[in-house]
Parts: sequence; structure tokens; C-alpha cells
Amino acid sequence: MERHDASNRAVVLLSGGMDSCVTAAILRSRGYNLALLHTTYGQRTAERELGSFNAIADFWGIEERRRLVVDIGYLAAIGGSSLTDRSIEVTEANLESTEIPTSYVPFRNANLLAIAASWAEVIGAGVIAIGAVEEDSSGYPDCRPAFFKAFERTIELGTRPETAIRIETPVIAMRKSQIVRTGLDLGAPLHLTWSCYRSNGPEPCGICDSCALRARAFAEAGAKDGIKN
Amino acid sequence: MERHDASNRAVVLLSGGMDSCVTAAILRSRGYNLALLHTTYGQRTAERELGSFNAIADFWGIEERRRLVVDIGYLAAIGGSSLTDRSIEVTEANLESTEIPTSYVPFRNANLLAIAASWAEVIGAGVIAIGAVEEDSSGYPDCRPAFFKAFERTIELGTRPETAIRIETPVIAMRKSQIVRTGLDLGAPLHLTWSCYRSNGPEPCGICDSCALRARAFAEAGAKDGIKN
Repeated sequence: MERHDASNRAVVLLSGGMDSCVTAAILRSRGYNLALLHTTYGQRTAERELGSFNAIADFWGIEERRRLVVDIGYLAAIGGSSLTDRSIEVTEANLESTEIPTSYVPFRNANLLAIAASWAEVIGAGVIAIGAVEEDSSGYPDCRPAFFKAFERTIELGTRPETAIRIETPVIAMRKSQIVRTGLDLGAPLHLTWSCYRSNGPEPCGICDSCALRARAFAEAGAKDGIKN
Repeated sequence: MERHDASNRAVVLLSGGMDSCVTAAILRSRGYNLALLHTTYGQRTAERELGSFNAIADFWGIEERRRLVVDIGYLAAIGGSSLTDRSIEVTEANLESTEIPTSYVPFRNANLLAIAASWAEVIGAGVIAIGAVEEDSSGYPDCRPAFFKAFERTIELGTRPETAIRIETPVIAMRKSQIVRTGLDLGAPLHLTWSCYRSNGPEPCGICDSCALRARAFAEAGAKDGIKN
């Protein structure tokens, strides 16, 4: 358990899914004070994800002024993704495919990180953490370590000289099953998270990419998914 | 007058101010088809700036589906700038100061460019243009060429492999008076632009940083500012 001094504040992007929840749990276990950022962008499951965000924040007792919910509905207006554009079908799971799936929201993570960096600069956070996963995931271009490194450099050049912000991606190299295992070890509230791309609750659809990845992850971790209760 | 082929589409950030108007005029003169992006973020002069945006777009006959107006009001919620935060005073002009002025909106340009890049990727634009000015301007860190270069690299790494987007900053090294001169030479509708940080119209305040820079620019260019009519 490392200790951090003065600027031990971390902005964590918390979608309400497992990866971001475990990312937050990891930063928390390292002694950071969390500031939680949630974005909603007209995706099908926006309401259910916001519910998960607040449930997780409540679980950890994060105060209101350390929660920021941002509407980036313009990503839906821009379109180009099955997550936001009703005219593009959400494809069913194909975990062997190497194509970028239709659920890719063009350059979404850069939009998220830009907001996070603005907030981090204002509240003096030294870290932004995001639960991106490269391997065992869907092959989005904005989930690669090189992208985050480039964005970190962009923050360095585009903010005040005294601002210093690192981007942390603690689960990026993990398999989904490791993420589940890590979350359970740290007591993260995985039962409050939401992964499904299609259903807005109360039950996940069980057949989309994201549901398939989650089910496989719990199975490989030899754990039971509390969301099913 | 260069000609451009296939992807001669350019997303231009058009605030409604002079710099972005002249930037758009330059791209237009190079043969690009413009797609105009305007953002509103709770700044004091939001309404007046949107009016300028639409007047300029109408002036050039840009069709509705090539205009995108995005609300990024979260920048006001995040605060930290006199432009959006009513508790921070807009300082009066001090053109000699080397400090970053209170009007700096933390990491704003990265937020704008992220939106522009998402849109550019969807509509297949090969260029994003922004009217940032480094010299003769206010010393914002996110107006420097190195920042734009880093962001361009971030786009390269964070979008589909087939996506290729350049960031152009055609007025970055110009003095304000050159911007005025260039705009007049290209027939840009400078009389429709709005610069004032304080007044929401019909008349500019005349004493804020931005009004002072504009007045000096027209004086140096030996031209009359049509907005005063």
C-alpha cells in the first residue's frame, strides 16, 4: 500500500462497467483520493450506467463535489457507432474477429480524457485513470498504450507549466478474468457494475460482445457474477 | 490556389471570432469543402458568438448538415476560468503581461479538437483547422504549435488505421494585424465576427483583452472595423 503526498488526488473515469470500477478500486488501494467522472453520450444504456456510477460512488462514500457527470451527447449527434446510432446494428459477439467492431465510438476516449484533464487541472489532480483494456478486448484504436502516452504528452504541452498529470491505465494489460479476480481481491463492488451494450436493465441481454466477454471472464476466474442475483 | 482531391473536406472550428473566420476563409481559398463546428460552453458571450457562427456560415452558403453546434457546458461546471466562472473577474487588457490570463479555459482546445476529430473521422475529413494564434496573443498553453503537433499524433494513434487527419493552424504565426489583412484580402466577412469577452451584444465592451487586441489589429492594418457600423 503506497502512500502519496500533496497531490494524491486522482480523476477516475467511471463508466459504471467492471473495468473502470476495478481501475478505481486499484487507485483507491494505492491511497489516492478519488474524483469520479462519468459521461453519458446518448448510448442505449445511458440510464443504467449512470445508476451504476452513483451506486459505486455511494459504496465508497465519494462526496458529491468529487463526482462529475457530463453530457457528451454530441457523440451521438456525430454518430458512426452502433452504440449511439440507431441505424447501425449492434453486432453479436465474435471474439475471434480482428476488425474494429461497430460499437467503436470514433475517438471517444480522447473526448473523455480531454474532459478529465480539464477537471484534473482545476482541482489539482496529478493522475487521470481510465479502465481501458487492450488485450482480451475489442480492438478499439483509442485503447492502446501508445495512444495514452501520446495523450499524456498532449496534456503536458497543453496545460499550465505547473500542471503535471499522469495517465494511468492499471488494467490495460490484464485479461478480463484477471480484472474480475483483482476486483474481488480488492473488495470492489462488481455486483453494482453494468456491462451490457444493449439492455438498459434490469437484466443484461447476455448475447452482445460485452456480455459475452463478461461471462467468459467470470467463468475463467471461477467466480459467480453477482449481477445475476 | 491549390486543388485537393477525394478527401478535400475540412472541419473548421468556428467560434465566430476573427481568427477562426480567417482560418475558414484560408481553407476555403485552398479549395476545401468546409464543415463548420461551433461550441458553446456557458461563456458570457455564448449567444452572440453563435449568432456570428450562423451568419458566417450563411454568408458562405454552408449547408445545415455541414454545421455542428455542440454544447460543452461541462467546461463551465468544471470552472477555473473567468470566461465561464462568474466568481473570477475578467481582467482588463494588459498586453505586456507574460502570465497566463484568467480567461484561460483549462485544456479547452483539447476538448474542441477531440470533438472535431470524432466528427472528422465520421465524415471522412482529412483536415481539422483551428484559428489558434501563438504570438501577439494571450499566451494560452494550448495555442502552441507543439501542442497541436502532439494532438495530431494522438489522433493518428487513437483512430481507425485508415483515418488520416492533419491539424492545420494557418494563422498561428500571424500577428493580429496580418490576420485582419488576410481576411480582408480573401473577402472574409469580418464584419460578422465577434471578439468581445464581456458583452453579449449588440456593442462590444471595448476594454477587455480581446477588444483591445482587435482594435490594435485593425489600427495596425490601417483598416476600419465594420463591426462598429
